[in-house]
Amino acid sequence: MRNTLRGMDAIFNARSVAVVGASDDERKLGFHVMKSLIQGGYSGTIFPINPRKREILGMKGYPSLAHVPEMVDLCIVALPAGLVPGIIRDCREKGVRGVVLITAGFREIEDESGGRLQDEITSLADEAGIPVIGPNTFGIVNLHAGLNASFTPQFSNVKKGGISLLSQSGGMSHMMGFLSMRDDFGFSKIVGLGNRCTIDFADMIAYLMRDPATRVIAMYVEGIDNPRRLLEVAKAFRGKKPIVAYKVGLSAVSDLASKSHTGSLAGRHELYEGAFKQAGILTVESSLELLDAAKALSSSPLPKGRAVAVLSGQAGPAMAACDMCEKEGLRVVPFSGETRRRIEDLLPPMAIRTNPVDMGPAWYDSRAIRGIVESVLRDKAVDAILLCIMFASANEGSIRALSGSLGKWGREKPIVCCLSSPPGIWDEEVESLVEKGSIINYPTPERAAKSLSALWKYKSVKETSKGMGKALERLHIPKGRGP
Amino acid sequence: MRNTLRGMDAIFNARSVAVVGASDDERKLGFHVMKSLIQGGYSGTIFPINPRKREILGMKGYPSLAHVPEMVDLCIVALPAGLVPGIIRDCREKGVRGVVLITAGFREIEDESGGRLQDEITSLADEAGIPVIGPNTFGIVNLHAGLNASFTPQFSNVKKGGISLLSQSGGMSHMMGFLSMRDDFGFSKIVGLGNRCTIDFADMIAYLMRDPATRVIAMYVEGIDNPRRLLEVAKAFRGKKPIVAYKVGLSAVSDLASKSHTGSLAGRHELYEGAFKQAGILTVESSLELLDAAKALSSSPLPKGRAVAVLSGQAGPAMAACDMCEKEGLRVVPFSGETRRRIEDLLPPMAIRTNPVDMGPAWYDSRAIRGIVESVLRDKAVDAILLCIMFASANEGSIRALSGSLGKWGREKPIVCCLSSPPGIWDEEVESLVEKGSIINYPTPERAAKSLSALWKYKSVKETSKGMGKALERLHIPKGRGP
Repeated sequence: MRNTLRGMDAIFNARSVAVVGASDDERKLGFHVMKSLIQGGYSGTIFPINPRKREILGMKGYPSLAHVPEMVDLCIVALPAGLVPGIIRDCREKGVRGVVLITAGFREIEDESGGRLQDEITSLADEAGIPVIGPNTFGIVNLHAGLNASFTPQFSNVKKGGISLLSQSGGMSHMMGFLSMRDDFGFSKIVGLGNRCTIDFADMIAYLMRDPATRVIAMYVEGIDNPRRLLEVAKAFRGKKPIVAYKVGLSAVSDLASKSHTGSLAGRHELYEGAFKQAGILTVESSLELLDAAKALSSSPLPKGRAVAVLSGQAGPAMAACDMCEKEGLRVVPFSGETRRRIEDLLPPMAIRTNPVDMGPAWYDSRAIRGIVESVLRDKAVDAILLCIMFASANEGSIRALSGSLGKWGREKPIVCCLSSPPGIWDEEVESLVEKGSIINYPTPERAAKSLSALWKYKSVKETSKGMGKALERLHIPKGRGP
Repeated sequence: MRNTLRGMDAIFNARSVAVVGASDDERKLGFHVMKSLIQGGYSGTIFPINPRKREILGMKGYPSLAHVPEMVDLCIVALPAGLVPGIIRDCREKGVRGVVLITAGFREIEDESGGRLQDEITSLADEAGIPVIGPNTFGIVNLHAGLNASFTPQFSNVKKGGISLLSQSGGMSHMMGFLSMRDDFGFSKIVGLGNRCTIDFADMIAYLMRDPATRVIAMYVEGIDNPRRLLEVAKAFRGKKPIVAYKVGLSAVSDLASKSHTGSLAGRHELYEGAFKQAGILTVESSLELLDAAKALSSSPLPKGRAVAVLSGQAGPAMAACDMCEKEGLRVVPFSGETRRRIEDLLPPMAIRTNPVDMGPAWYDSRAIRGIVESVLRDKAVDAILLCIMFASANEGSIRALSGSLGKWGREKPIVCCLSSPPGIWDEEVESLVEKGSIINYPTPERAAKSLSALWKYKSVKETSKGMGKALERLHIPKGRGP
């Protein structure tokens, strides 16, 4: 696996990229790949390969890989399937270190020739020791390296963050990338695994566990050829970094679609569920939950336990949050005596002063709200805070008043929020708190509560992961060797 | 109930409004209420009532209701609780037709005096035949009438739409209103029921069922004092307009919070679930689902049955959509022979040409995508379309190419979409299709599928609602008398 890891590093941090099938015809994927690299501001060298073009998009074109005068780290291939075996041979000759194989028409097609062709390129790549991502993928993006090796230039507009997404679907990757642009959170890497001819989920996990820019691994899974290997790798790294998986293929009809999509049956859903749990992989039920959980896990400290304080500017959101907390295994606990007394000092008797706290009556008194939040943050009976405040004309100043306290305390206990206002009112203040890592914010109290539960679930994974180091040896994954 | 309905119409379509407790001190709710009316562009007459002010925000102030020289349809009250009984008496004297009672400090407070005070005002209002919304509410908003009778001026920025929201929580109403501003859908009325002293969910349902601007009723429910009455009214109107309910109070801790919030225990969750179902009320599990379902029900035709076609520009989103469809009781069915042949003509063999359809290989060929969508729309075996297309550089033109077909067909079968692009790329085209009522759009395929299932569930409610007319008589709700 050591070679694979080095090759993968050559892919994600490539100093030079060759595009085989580069084109200036916008009906060709090779055109869009070139655009992605150029518009993404890739700082390495780009070598467009096309036997019929001397110049492509203002860059010198090369008739073949052999003609490239320098070393090539990464080769992106966007040519018809039948030509791919020859290209893999060229890559070996040239000493190319990794391949992103965008071309489709392999194991996923009805005709058996596709499967045979995939077997052929897999053997060729394995013999050459070249890791291949794909085929049948949109590509990969490493936002921290400014490398957009995909056919979608807009991926370069995704913000840098700590989430690495491994996906068997280009469509889902695109959608999640676009959602991040609208909801203002970031990714480290977005990886389309496609038909996984040499690089599967397991290899990517092993690589990303050592990647300092990746804080959480989010996976969109259809079907896995070798689930045992994935589970073994996940177990070996259990508790090192969170892994969250969204598995589709629940229904017979989508299971069949999976076969046609990336060439593997989705398989029995409930078996995956159990196996994932055993391996310490968190599971979610939708793409939105995958992003919500990954967002929390990529930027929040973990709670020590499951005891939550729900502090709310209004009672309704507190109730919705409490329901979700309890449903997801968190506990809305009684406060310590000191906290109780402090809150009773700060809030009038008409308010709900136990947990959940209805801070409504303190709307006009930012000092009181700050006092409540601070005393609960200090309370040892509380592991995490769920803070919900909905804007009203009368509480406009409350977020500003809280900024100091939240900024100071945010790194000790998770503070997961639903701070909601009309567009343009609290956006800047909330964004700044999020940027600083003081809070995480969600559009509804239920999503905030569910994401908080993901933090606690991962904390439990971590706690039950002691003495797992030996498993690493057995897997022959070299330890402590960063990419 | 006839009087109540007339009084409620006087509230929601008030030609004149008195604000008792009007103020120019921004620490008073009476200030924010005035701001809401004025900034909301209310076209009726406003009478600020304040014994100590001759002028409030540039308007002539009146020392009491009795001093107002004209008729008052609606009286908004924002004064301390102890003064409210006197105000209700003043309202009766003046012939005020309806009251929105914002004041808190009644049944929801710990002290028993609150409950007694609420009983007192309830009797006074009932004797006078004046419907009272509240107490302990943020107010009401009727967007079609430009009436913002709440303490939050920003509610006036909510778009006009067909959803009327009945809510026991001001916080949840605010949050849902703000979400609508960000996600670009609209409301008809937003109603904070508060402690429900004379107007409860049942009364509002009876009123909204006759309100031409309301196409769907969305409810956020904590606890109900008289669930039987709610269920009877819902049953009486079963199938006339959709009702969707989100009920909190699942956990012991939120049940207790409900008591303190609006003075009623949330009660056994599962009992509500069953009773709602019997009464034809759809239920959802979160605020987001409530909005998603209401959005679909307010603007889409209903499917004839549960047979869905999933057409997707990418296979992954199709699988996620299929999973959710089947989970929610929809069926992803085989196409008719004609449709099958047409799709086989249009798509190459490497594509998934059965249902779900992977239209990926037709990206460059808008005519093929249009042909697929059109033949499926014509297919009698299909009751609804779920259309997912994620932008990629190569399929940028596909939405424009589809506009014509979608615009033409959209009113016959539901077309629920997840059309996803980076900000600014497809937004205008998608918005225009949504505006025209041709499609509904959601940010993820799962949310699109779940919302489509709400359409089918309501269709089933409608089909099992025949011969319910007699129930209306028994309830003494005059039939066919619009507000």
